[in-house]
Amino acid sequence: MTLKTEDISLDLIRRAIKENQKDFLLEIVNELYPADIAEFMDDLTLDEAKYLYTLLDKEEAADVLMELEEDVRERFLESFSTQEIAREFIDNLDSDDAADLIAELPDERREEVLLHIEDRQQAQNIADLLVYPSNSAGGLMAKEFIKVNVNWYVVTCVREMRKQAEEVEEVYHVYVVNDDDVLVGLLSLKSLLIASPRAKVSELYIRDVVSIKAKQKGEEVASIMNKYDLVVLPVVDELGRLIGRITIDDVVDFIKEEAEKDYQMMSGMTQNIESGDKIWEITQGRLFWLVVALFGGIVGSRVISNYEDQISVYPEMAFFMPLIAAMGGNVGVQSSALIVKGLANNTITTGSILPKLWKEVSVGIINGLVCSGILLFYSFFFAPSLALSMTVSVALMTVILFASIFGTFVPLALDKLKIDPALATGPFITTSNDIVGLFIYFMIGRMMYGIFM
Amino acid sequence: MTLKTEDISLDLIRRAIKENQKDFLLEIVNELYPADIAEFMDDLTLDEAKYLYTLLDKEEAADVLMELEEDVRERFLESFSTQEIAREFIDNLDSDDAADLIAELPDERREEVLLHIEDRQQAQNIADLLVYPSNSAGGLMAKEFIKVNVNWYVVTCVREMRKQAEEVEEVYHVYVVNDDDVLVGLLSLKSLLIASPRAKVSELYIRDVVSIKAKQKGEEVASIMNKYDLVVLPVVDELGRLIGRITIDDVVDFIKEEAEKDYQMMSGMTQNIESGDKIWEITQGRLFWLVVALFGGIVGSRVISNYEDQISVYPEMAFFMPLIAAMGGNVGVQSSALIVKGLANNTITTGSILPKLWKEVSVGIINGLVCSGILLFYSFFFAPSLALSMTVSVALMTVILFASIFGTFVPLALDKLKIDPALATGPFITTSNDIVGLFIYFMIGRMMYGIFM
Repeated sequence: MTLKTEDISLDLIRRAIKENQKDFLLEIVNELYPADIAEFMDDLTLDEAKYLYTLLDKEEAADVLMELEEDVRERFLESFSTQEIAREFIDNLDSDDAADLIAELPDERREEVLLHIEDRQQAQNIADLLVYPSNSAGGLMAKEFIKVNVNWYVVTCVREMRKQAEEVEEVYHVYVVNDDDVLVGLLSLKSLLIASPRAKVSELYIRDVVSIKAKQKGEEVASIMNKYDLVVLPVVDELGRLIGRITIDDVVDFIKEEAEKDYQMMSGMTQNIESGDKIWEITQGRLFWLVVALFGGIVGSRVISNYEDQISVYPEMAFFMPLIAAMGGNVGVQSSALIVKGLANNTITTGSILPKLWKEVSVGIINGLVCSGILLFYSFFFAPSLALSMTVSVALMTVILFASIFGTFVPLALDKLKIDPALATGPFITTSNDIVGLFIYFMIGRMMYGIFM
Repeated sequence: MTLKTEDISLDLIRRAIKENQKDFLLEIVNELYPADIAEFMDDLTLDEAKYLYTLLDKEEAADVLMELEEDVRERFLESFSTQEIAREFIDNLDSDDAADLIAELPDERREEVLLHIEDRQQAQNIADLLVYPSNSAGGLMAKEFIKVNVNWYVVTCVREMRKQAEEVEEVYHVYVVNDDDVLVGLLSLKSLLIASPRAKVSELYIRDVVSIKAKQKGEEVASIMNKYDLVVLPVVDELGRLIGRITIDDVVDFIKEEAEKDYQMMSGMTQNIESGDKIWEITQGRLFWLVVALFGGIVGSRVISNYEDQISVYPEMAFFMPLIAAMGGNVGVQSSALIVKGLANNTITTGSILPKLWKEVSVGIINGLVCSGILLFYSFFFAPSLALSMTVSVALMTVILFASIFGTFVPLALDKLKIDPALATGPFITTSNDIVGLFIYFMIGRMMYGIFM
């Protein structure tokens, strides 16, 4: 009887661990990929996870470790000595993963682990990588790559590559450098494979190669790899010398994180929380913006209280307050979301703000006319007075226009001030629009009731 | 003097086209990558773009075409005959891009183009691909790949690969099939490169290979490639026979589109609009949800009008209406965004809804207590009556609890009904919360004013 992946469940693993069925568990982990094993380990207790972990061979163990959720990995590593971490994990990881792992450790353990690494080349690579901020090309790159000299013959290449390839798990391209170690092009494995051994690299290599400087930002890495459909991107230093390469899988994670950050910001959460997190973590991530919105609401209540007399004479004024506030919020979020998305995708160049504002005003006028028209029609028949019906439709038009302009201007201004423009898509923009919207509403109300009553 | 990429601007290109400087333009396009050329062409007039296009060689021209924005490409293709489209573009594209291109054409031109394709193998491949929905693994795959038989020797492999490799632009893996064409594993190019020519494939190949069935969804492709950090994913039919492969660049686009769709939905837009689009397009994408919210606001105004007597006696009731409505909206969006994100990342399994609701209730209680506490404190000192201060704080607590539950329940329910749960993060949830929130507020108000006045 052979074991099938579909049949493996958390319960099955738990029971096997409890009953100490080593052979059966070995069969299970052989059937699974590191990412699957990690997924199960995320849900096991620390002791269960450690038991399962001891059954893995070292290469696989290191891969599983990197696939664990960050907080699980942290707890897991706490139960190992710095020497164990160095020998069991770091030596079996690619330099970029190893550097990420070490960066996650508490300061005092970081240096100890570095000292315990047996492969001094690996230790050197990691130390090199730790210099770069995690959000830069240098922070995303790995030091494992294959390079050949542009003056070599194919036969020399293949011999040299045999040596270098042992360290490199997956080879997609071979980089071609000149005598100064400057990146000059790349060789596809395909061309090497079908070339004659006596051909020269200089006859085969592709001169067009997109590269990135180590200090450039993660966003630039993502946009370049996405634009040119790249799977690997070579990283060079200021002199153009090849120092590393970034693979697309790390960038996919980066792209996902960026998109999630914007999503979170719009939904009014301050941290990357997930529905599976602890109640206290979720509360923390959500409370900040709720309190900000609460204070905004209190300011709004003071605005309204200035018009108490008007409300007590014309209580119907209160009917449409939430409508005006909500429409202002909706329009503001639409406008700012368009700008934030445009800035993220680089389709908005930070040129003059005026043409964008003008376009938003045009859209605002059309949408405002449609919505106020509907509201005028409705209120004409159903609202208690002509004054109210004029107030709500004129106020709605004004608020939609204001919210369009405000929602366009704020993220552009934040971006110029080097503040994340996505800030302007969440409770901040709806709360401000609420306050201003109510103010506009009562101003116009006072005017209209003066005219029509 | 050599031309540098940084020096090339739209104006420079425009002027060169106007002055018919072919040699200079040739130098420019040689310096640029297809994605860059496409970016410039997006901004040129149709005539300018066609002029530039004629200077490209056929391979590059096809690549540039695929990088154009969809609406630009559409207009561009309209000016070519179906025969030109087949000979100039389709024959020079990978099968997946070619199929995407043909799928974009109007129905009546589609068949004509297929008939004009000279490479019958390519026509067959495209027809095969057009069968699959664009959002399935089959719709994302290309038919170009290299496969070898598990019983071959390395020397046979290399010979066969030379033949196959001409068609395939980038080779990352070589797939290993058995005599029935069933996928049994893969060979890395690295292992082929360093193996002896007399070794057998069966000694070298990796048996662990993740694959996907053609009918599986795009979301599954993305989550599998992301989970296992894959660059290429082989696609098999129901019998396990290798029929195609998906590369990560197509999936990155897919992941980005999915994230943008959710973002749009939350910001209350119905189509994929960008700040660069025409005013009319932007208006259309935004108007639907504004009108829905408007009708929600009208319903809200009717709810409030039921309490007109109360407002005319106690006009201060109106002060906190927008606060209550806004807080309900904010909490609702937070709750539903967490669920939508969890569903998208597969961290929420569609099991029982109760534990999730219970967790949300706990978070709601904590956040509700903090916010109502602040509001009670404020209103105790500043609100005109104890009745109002009790009303607003009790109502806020109730609304936050309600919005937490509602915001959790709705996306889960939509998901079970196979409706996109992201629907529950935008104006829909804020508008519903507004209406219910106001209702709760006045109910509690009537009760409190009965007790304290």
